[in-house]
Amino acid sequence: MGEFELIERFFRRGATTTPAGPVALGIGDDCALLQPAPGQQLAISTDMLVEGRHFLEDTDPAALGHKALAVNLSDLAACGAEPLAFTLALALPPERARDEAWLGSLAQGLFALADAHHCALVGGDTTAGPLNLCITVFGQVPAGRALRRDGACAGDDIWVSGTPGRARLGLQALRGEITLTPAALALARAQLERPTPRLALGRTLRGIASSAIDVSDGLVGDLGHVLAASSVGAAIDTATLVQVLADSLPSPGSDPHLSEDDLRTAALSGGDDYELAFTAAPGLRAAVLATAQASGTPVTRVGHIEAAPGLRLLGADGQPISPHYRSFDHFA
Amino acid sequence: MGEFELIERFFRRGATTTPAGPVALGIGDDCALLQPAPGQQLAISTDMLVEGRHFLEDTDPAALGHKALAVNLSDLAACGAEPLAFTLALALPPERARDEAWLGSLAQGLFALADAHHCALVGGDTTAGPLNLCITVFGQVPAGRALRRDGACAGDDIWVSGTPGRARLGLQALRGEITLTPAALALARAQLERPTPRLALGRTLRGIASSAIDVSDGLVGDLGHVLAASSVGAAIDTATLVQVLADSLPSPGSDPHLSEDDLRTAALSGGDDYELAFTAAPGLRAAVLATAQASGTPVTRVGHIEAAPGLRLLGADGQPISPHYRSFDHFA
Repeated sequence: MGEFELIERFFRRGATTTPAGPVALGIGDDCALLQPAPGQQLAISTDMLVEGRHFLEDTDPAALGHKALAVNLSDLAACGAEPLAFTLALALPPERARDEAWLGSLAQGLFALADAHHCALVGGDTTAGPLNLCITVFGQVPAGRALRRDGACAGDDIWVSGTPGRARLGLQALRGEITLTPAALALARAQLERPTPRLALGRTLRGIASSAIDVSDGLVGDLGHVLAASSVGAAIDTATLVQVLADSLPSPGSDPHLSEDDLRTAALSGGDDYELAFTAAPGLRAAVLATAQASGTPVTRVGHIEAAPGLRLLGADGQPISPHYRSFDHFA
Repeated sequence: MGEFELIERFFRRGATTTPAGPVALGIGDDCALLQPAPGQQLAISTDMLVEGRHFLEDTDPAALGHKALAVNLSDLAACGAEPLAFTLALALPPERARDEAWLGSLAQGLFALADAHHCALVGGDTTAGPLNLCITVFGQVPAGRALRRDGACAGDDIWVSGTPGRARLGLQALRGEITLTPAALALARAQLERPTPRLALGRTLRGIASSAIDVSDGLVGDLGHVLAASSVGAAIDTATLVQVLADSLPSPGSDPHLSEDDLRTAALSGGDDYELAFTAAPGLRAAVLATAQASGTPVTRVGHIEAAPGLRLLGADGQPISPHYRSFDHFA
């Protein structure tokens, strides 16, 4: 199977080549052509997944296809953008390029999520090389209304969607570092391997949230980007974060070594959750909760923005705790 | 040097973060925001370069930075689009991530070409992994006026820009398969390592060319995509192609083994030139030549489109020749 046959068989579909809505030209020319609706800006994000770094060699290919797109859609969610289209550049080792079952599953996982969000594959590149998936995603958002990192104000509440830290617990369980009950492992593993981009929440937070970011490298690190961009500081109620994570897992662990500290570390510095962290004025709490309910997304208030720079972590008694949490860094 | 410091030091520049023209938001948020001018469509292309496949380990990093963007800009040229912006996803082995001289040269080569075309880096991703550069480029083109592959008509002339095959001769010389004079080697190597995207030609061919494609995998293969998309065939005057290539090299070879057949093979199936192949009605020859002159791009008429499917290669006497030329295929 050659390069062009591989593309034709697994990645080119009738639906994506038919010009529809903002996609004026899909796969099969030198460029794809997009035309956002009048008054809309195009939101763009790109993410690269590398075997051995972002996923293991034996990862279910359908889950890999899902996740490669999900991490990009999560960036659109964090901007409040509506997905339109994506490109896929794929480096495949020869044995993968010959493995039709693996390619078929990868495409199935990818397109299932793409179809759920009406996001068309409009172009790409396929080459031999160490396994690497690079997706660039395109969304649209009304001009001037994108959620950004630089809008947090002193006094704003800090909110998170879902349960930050659950993906990290899944990774630790797969590595044998902790033991989870089968039901808890299933949930944690699903969070790790098939994260849900919070697109409906992001869209409905436009005009409510003062800033937003997706939690990909861990809450402390990602919230740090918001604080830096907004020139503010924050206090985080770590006990609430631990409680949310513990409550989300049916019987959090049969391993006596899974301590509150493990849960706190996962919630504060565990990456790969693709939840949203966002800020909103205290007067908008009812609006945030209504928006969360309308989009079917659990949200929790976990702290507040302060004028003084820096991030303060508070324990159950409201007193500062000072463990050192690091954000994920590929070159650290 | 961590991931974010690396981005900050080498890839984030004042100029690219200042919203200007169609770039409403550049590097530093979850998404970049672009707003094409009213009536314009966004042209999008993505290309991935893998070490050991698209470039050698000892490739000059400035040339690599240039080429990674050039191959993408070439796709915009083939659509007649004007560059706006690009994203860069970069997987770096740890030793490269520590090599500040290498990173600095890569960025210098990349930004020199980007600046020449007013194309801003608006976002990206940086990760550890086998060396891999994935660029997605964005251009704009008036709605409905993009050059496409599917417009070639029987009777149209076939044109090429520059000298297809020169990059292949450069690669063969670097591999020691052929010998070129120093002056010829310098030209051939520049074509291979620092191809010139034909953006000015592409833009001015809008409304003149009936179809266009960039020659990345070899003329026979790439022209084959045009023929398939347009449901036509073609006859190619191989003697003219050989002549153009030979004439472009000061004393084409001191190696007696560099035969006319070598030149023909390079011209017909050598990839990596990033020249344009395009078609236009015979009545527009003067317009094509005027356009080429205005954009400072040499062009040559090398054949014509026919109604009968298939590609016929004609020798100096106008008689068919039947060597087997293959397009480059990463998995063949």
